[in-house]
Amino acid sequence: MGIVVQKYGGSSLADADAIKRVARRIVENKKAGHDVVVAVSAMGDSTDELLDLAGAVSPLPPAREMDMLLTAGERISMALVAMAISDLGFTARSFTGSQAGVITDSVHGKAKIIDITPGRITSALADGHIVIVAGFQGVSADTKEITTLGRGGTDTTAVALAAALEADVCEIYTDVDGVFTADPRIVPAARKLASVSYEEMLELAACGAKILHLRCVEYGRRYGIPIHVRSSFSQLEGTWVVQDPTDGGTMEQAIISGVAHDRSEAKITVVGVPDKVGEAARIFEALSEAQVNLDMIVQNVSAATTSLTDISFTLPRTDGQAAMNALAKIQAEVGYDKLLYDDKIGKVSLIGAGMRSHPGITAKFFAALASAGVNIGMISTSEIRISVVVTEDEVDQAVRATHSAFDLDAEEIEAVVYGGSGR
Amino acid sequence: MGIVVQKYGGSSLADADAIKRVARRIVENKKAGHDVVVAVSAMGDSTDELLDLAGAVSPLPPAREMDMLLTAGERISMALVAMAISDLGFTARSFTGSQAGVITDSVHGKAKIIDITPGRITSALADGHIVIVAGFQGVSADTKEITTLGRGGTDTTAVALAAALEADVCEIYTDVDGVFTADPRIVPAARKLASVSYEEMLELAACGAKILHLRCVEYGRRYGIPIHVRSSFSQLEGTWVVQDPTDGGTMEQAIISGVAHDRSEAKITVVGVPDKVGEAARIFEALSEAQVNLDMIVQNVSAATTSLTDISFTLPRTDGQAAMNALAKIQAEVGYDKLLYDDKIGKVSLIGAGMRSHPGITAKFFAALASAGVNIGMISTSEIRISVVVTEDEVDQAVRATHSAFDLDAEEIEAVVYGGSGR
Repeated sequence: MGIVVQKYGGSSLADADAIKRVARRIVENKKAGHDVVVAVSAMGDSTDELLDLAGAVSPLPPAREMDMLLTAGERISMALVAMAISDLGFTARSFTGSQAGVITDSVHGKAKIIDITPGRITSALADGHIVIVAGFQGVSADTKEITTLGRGGTDTTAVALAAALEADVCEIYTDVDGVFTADPRIVPAARKLASVSYEEMLELAACGAKILHLRCVEYGRRYGIPIHVRSSFSQLEGTWVVQDPTDGGTMEQAIISGVAHDRSEAKITVVGVPDKVGEAARIFEALSEAQVNLDMIVQNVSAATTSLTDISFTLPRTDGQAAMNALAKIQAEVGYDKLLYDDKIGKVSLIGAGMRSHPGITAKFFAALASAGVNIGMISTSEIRISVVVTEDEVDQAVRATHSAFDLDAEEIEAVVYGGSGR
Repeated sequence: MGIVVQKYGGSSLADADAIKRVARRIVENKKAGHDVVVAVSAMGDSTDELLDLAGAVSPLPPAREMDMLLTAGERISMALVAMAISDLGFTARSFTGSQAGVITDSVHGKAKIIDITPGRITSALADGHIVIVAGFQGVSADTKEITTLGRGGTDTTAVALAAALEADVCEIYTDVDGVFTADPRIVPAARKLASVSYEEMLELAACGAKILHLRCVEYGRRYGIPIHVRSSFSQLEGTWVVQDPTDGGTMEQAIISGVAHDRSEAKITVVGVPDKVGEAARIFEALSEAQVNLDMIVQNVSAATTSLTDISFTLPRTDGQAAMNALAKIQAEVGYDKLLYDDKIGKVSLIGAGMRSHPGITAKFFAALASAGVNIGMISTSEIRISVVVTEDEVDQAVRATHSAFDLDAEEIEAVVYGGSGR
């Protein structure tokens, strides 16, 4: 009987029939006695169409106007969802991000939510309406300009609304059945997780699992909002993202939650860096100034005979050109030998909160990779994660071997389609 | 060096190339030293596409949500125009109706502007930006809901902005060269008017000339805003709509400004109405309750032998079914004999401020129709207009004969395409 916040992504709102199906599902929750608040993304490919139009009028459109343009997408889908709900005999009120009180900073294209003032939402709920909110958008506190939240924005809108409204749950509807122990397209025996902790989900998201965006999970953890990731195409229970999961009703937490992989990164090696104080700092300063996001960083021990070292790091392939340019500019200053660029890599990560208290996980992981004939390029670890870089074409066998070695394979194979969640 | 307000309709913004052309034209005005404020409609057919989507999810969508949906159209076009301007090296700021301070009443789908509070516009102009405003939309004063202005809405937005900003001129860019003495598709010798008075333009608009909407002209007249109707596809001067026109530089105003026609109406005749006090009132009450817009009304003198009269009126064909239903309900009460419905009619109107001081215009008009073999069904007049109803298939010859009789034919024929102006 509390407030339920739901999020529907673009793939769940692809056309009029999909919108009607979503409306029926929303109404079911209302009938069950809940106050329902829904965050929606733009329909299907409509964001890409708007981006194409922008590209056709200007190669470098101003960020303010790009936000004005893209926010039209959610405006269309939210109005259509409200209409479809009305057609089922219930009343709905759609609100833009600005109307819903989604207050952000003023960084166009990747604004951060700084407050939610949901006065219009709570009034509409009090009047018995279902509330539909445009995801992905807000209004800046100081300039009163329309902003967008960047990738995963609608997930973040939904969780932020759930926090502000003290909702019982935030349901993220997507085109897959939940969070799996691995990508089922690679590992057909992957199992759907009944639940997973916020911190594991953060690692999964950071390591390439596209089902929930990092910011959404961070928000959920900070405010303790249970997030239920589930399919809009079935009535199955999905995966609960919570503070203290007990997967499958067992008393003890599973050691390993899943195997994630990521093919979107590249590796750069700076060869022959003089092993002096400050050289590494200069390299990473230059990359930071070029707005390059770094992931894993490895520095080899220098050979005693040369006093030269190699520094390798991984980064999104989309940042590759900017990084190479930034490094080329400082070659004389730093005095390194040369740059190597490799975008035929992949990252495989083993994630599990239980590995804190179970030694030997790393050894077992590396043994599984070795027996599958996979060579390890780079290694990085956190308390609950071990990641390795391998060659791109060995990613699939690395994921499968690891999944089997940790007994994650299901006895029956679930039929799912695993895909990205858009924005 | 003052403020110029421009309006571009959907046909001038059909695709990326059209938007770039509009941007170049806007920038020309900025370069000439003007402060430029632009009201835009939705691109090309995009409004129809949104209407189709709405129809696909709900046969009777709530008006509030319909306004939320349709206002996405101008949001897209205004952002794209701002981007195209930026690409030319100038800065533009787009504003929604709400941001631009277009305050309306709360009648969704046909809201009226009650105030303009253009603080953000004047700030942006002061900062040297070109301002792009979403036409056709506003925000209601009391409920803070998004509203739309209905047909001709963007024209009205433009003129209202011109009034609020005390602009020098409101330029309405469309896909024709201006206001013509008749529809050039029917009368190839029709001439473009250099200027026309507000009151004549109001009659032209009311009588079927689709180039400017009635509300826009009314607004212009009330605030004394010179309206310049011109083509976005050429650099030609168009038609000036002003208080006191002097067409073609002559000292005296032309007697006749033009011949308008309208094929969108139907005629209903209520046959055999008892000729008693209050019967006609009851009929028009019923039509008013059914929200039917009436145009011409004619009551025949009753035949002395029967004490029965016939009442005929014209109305938009789109209101025909509602009117017939409303009248059928009161047949017993009023005691009329039967209803006749005829939608094969057309209206031809002769308009000119000079006819006030020139007797004999009516006689000449009717003589022209007679010599063309056109039979007159109904007649209505104002101080500066004479309208007749004819059969639909005689409209063209009636327009041509009238145009010739009043020496309106040009010596050289201008090549134009005459079309509707959308919203």
